[in-house]
Amino acid sequence: MVKVNENFDLIQNNYLFVEIARRVDEFQNQNPDVDLIKMGIGDVTKPLSKTVIKAYKDAVDEMADAEKFRGYGPEQGYDFLIDAIIENDFKPLGVELKNTEVFISDGAKCDTGNFQELFAKDNIIAVTDPVYPVYVDSNVMAGRSGEMSDDGQHYENIVYLPATAENNFVPELPKEDVDIIYLCYPNNPTGTTLTKDQLKEWIDYAKDNDAIILFDAAYEAFIKTENVPHSIYEVEGAKEVAVEFRSYSKTAGFTGTRCAYCVVPEELIIKNSKGEDVQLTPLWNRRQSTKFNGVSYPVQRAAESIYTPEGKKETQENLDYYAKNAQLIRESLEAIGLDVYGGVDSPYIWVKTPNDIDSWAFFDLLLNEANVVSTPGAGFGPSGEGYIRLTAFNTYEKTQQAMERISKLEF
Amino acid sequence: MVKVNENFDLIQNNYLFVEIARRVDEFQNQNPDVDLIKMGIGDVTKPLSKTVIKAYKDAVDEMADAEKFRGYGPEQGYDFLIDAIIENDFKPLGVELKNTEVFISDGAKCDTGNFQELFAKDNIIAVTDPVYPVYVDSNVMAGRSGEMSDDGQHYENIVYLPATAENNFVPELPKEDVDIIYLCYPNNPTGTTLTKDQLKEWIDYAKDNDAIILFDAAYEAFIKTENVPHSIYEVEGAKEVAVEFRSYSKTAGFTGTRCAYCVVPEELIIKNSKGEDVQLTPLWNRRQSTKFNGVSYPVQRAAESIYTPEGKKETQENLDYYAKNAQLIRESLEAIGLDVYGGVDSPYIWVKTPNDIDSWAFFDLLLNEANVVSTPGAGFGPSGEGYIRLTAFNTYEKTQQAMERISKLEF
Repeated sequence: MVKVNENFDLIQNNYLFVEIARRVDEFQNQNPDVDLIKMGIGDVTKPLSKTVIKAYKDAVDEMADAEKFRGYGPEQGYDFLIDAIIENDFKPLGVELKNTEVFISDGAKCDTGNFQELFAKDNIIAVTDPVYPVYVDSNVMAGRSGEMSDDGQHYENIVYLPATAENNFVPELPKEDVDIIYLCYPNNPTGTTLTKDQLKEWIDYAKDNDAIILFDAAYEAFIKTENVPHSIYEVEGAKEVAVEFRSYSKTAGFTGTRCAYCVVPEELIIKNSKGEDVQLTPLWNRRQSTKFNGVSYPVQRAAESIYTPEGKKETQENLDYYAKNAQLIRESLEAIGLDVYGGVDSPYIWVKTPNDIDSWAFFDLLLNEANVVSTPGAGFGPSGEGYIRLTAFNTYEKTQQAMERISKLEF
Repeated sequence: MVKVNENFDLIQNNYLFVEIARRVDEFQNQNPDVDLIKMGIGDVTKPLSKTVIKAYKDAVDEMADAEKFRGYGPEQGYDFLIDAIIENDFKPLGVELKNTEVFISDGAKCDTGNFQELFAKDNIIAVTDPVYPVYVDSNVMAGRSGEMSDDGQHYENIVYLPATAENNFVPELPKEDVDIIYLCYPNNPTGTTLTKDQLKEWIDYAKDNDAIILFDAAYEAFIKTENVPHSIYEVEGAKEVAVEFRSYSKTAGFTGTRCAYCVVPEELIIKNSKGEDVQLTPLWNRRQSTKFNGVSYPVQRAAESIYTPEGKKETQENLDYYAKNAQLIRESLEAIGLDVYGGVDSPYIWVKTPNDIDSWAFFDLLLNEANVVSTPGAGFGPSGEGYIRLTAFNTYEKTQQAMERISKLEF
């Protein structure tokens, strides 16, 4: 008799966005004339840049030509894109990579969700809290979470590392033995960062404890502050303990176009049960070759074009646009006395709810009184309670309007 | 200490295509002037059709326009494509589907590789032999295979169902208790099919044994013979026991463009360990929502255009072109006395090696004497020994030339 993977039962159905949609729909039905401003979802709004569009269409044209047509490409991605990545995303940081260490994919969500497959079931996972739910849920499905605790907020076998205003959003190193640590900086959802020195402590911890770091750098393009590393490999020794995930989603507006990559350095070696060395690069290569067939060729050409001088300029213009929104949100909310975090090196602004009201109550207040849709922090984990997340991805005009509305509220 | 997934050790490194490449390179180096004809790999050569190119580029243009730009789409795919699939691929067969039962993806390789995640580790897998390696390898990684047997050909815990000339390539129903059965019809690599009645026996077996069928129909567009079902759901009761995988790769030349889909009917219900019903549709939805972010919007529009009258006509022209190649291969090889299978409802031709030489020896003979690259059957599983696979995806001219060369050989 076929037996189901019962770990799926343990997943807390992610009612967060469903519940947000329900409350928004209910409000809109009762107030059909109100123009709601959506600042909840982390999706971009600026179209693809001219350079990207041209490269994308030129590559589609190649697919119409029998001489230039491309069928199956390498599962790992085309060298033209991998070489551009190494040259532009890493070399300027002083990080040298081989082209066999970079793997193109259709999304950092897929990569961060799939990478756990390389590890045995009995590893202890640590996540910072609040957290991007994919890290947790993919491990729940794989059987690493244990049961949900009675408070409905913690899985028994997952180690949560709180990041709150109390510790300046710098989580403490785990006190327990942990094996696999998910870090995301600039952070989703808090928008906060770690300095090079702070990140170094994690590298050292990983080395001392034979742990591995899965480092999600999907938001690195938003970094403006000096001494905030764009890549974990800027920190000495990181190649021996860390995988890095990158994405064009927020950088170049590829949320609907789908292209990302991850770096698995050859220096990343762990031990098997016999005490023998196991390199993770060939393992990930094997995983991808078996279960993935590469990214659409025109999409890879579109991604390559981001690295041309024109492409870089246009991408930076969009990043600057969102950064301006983020700054406006920060300044507007600070001006009315709210405690605001992130939004400097990140498109996410993490706002402490006033008067210690809970995150859903503040969500409702913003929805009903300011007609602004946010995301309640509680949806990102227990330490997200008492916060909401706003995103800088709306238009400047709408962002301005939203800030005016919120500024009129009395807390 | 981080612990590796040691099941990866059990994978037989797929030296097949590496070894083919090595022998081809060696030959070419020694014979630089020889024009090799490649008929080994299952990749298409015809460019994307005019209609597809237009739809693809129009959708890229939308991505340049702030009003029409699309960010994150539904993980399950856009309704415009799902509706076109239901209307065109299933309704004409008398199969009714809901749009929540169809899941768009970037490849049948991904879907067939990932679907096993919904099941517990202790299920017994059955595959027909020879077999598409992804079914086996994805289960090896997940820990369902057991050790490799001493002959280096069988995993202990996988049930192999031979399909050879001796049983007319109709594998016998399993004698052992099996839980999950991978079927691929038209078959890769043999190119053979099952009739509706033959497929019905598998459905009945699955029902009687509480097993599930993962049905790979990636080649259904090549079917010309009446009474060979295009979809497993043409067989009564199949919705209760079968998932179906489809792909645009071979149908519409999407091997480098990446779009596919799978169908998970709501009637597909299995029992959990408490004896409760578990529907697989929401489980797959959950898996995809957690670890996948949908297919590139322009690619989905390109796929949708295959279903327009012009798109259908152009797609059929390409299919007819490959079918003509397949027919030429069949007839040419039969004329010189070889035993040839498949190639009628499939782009794959499965050729018995003459005088019982092994598949690598025949591969070498074709390479050295006819300068034609094939795929040795042994690479697809133990029952592939004694056969080679040829594909119909080269140009007609090259196929003709290859057949002339082979026809001059003496066996």
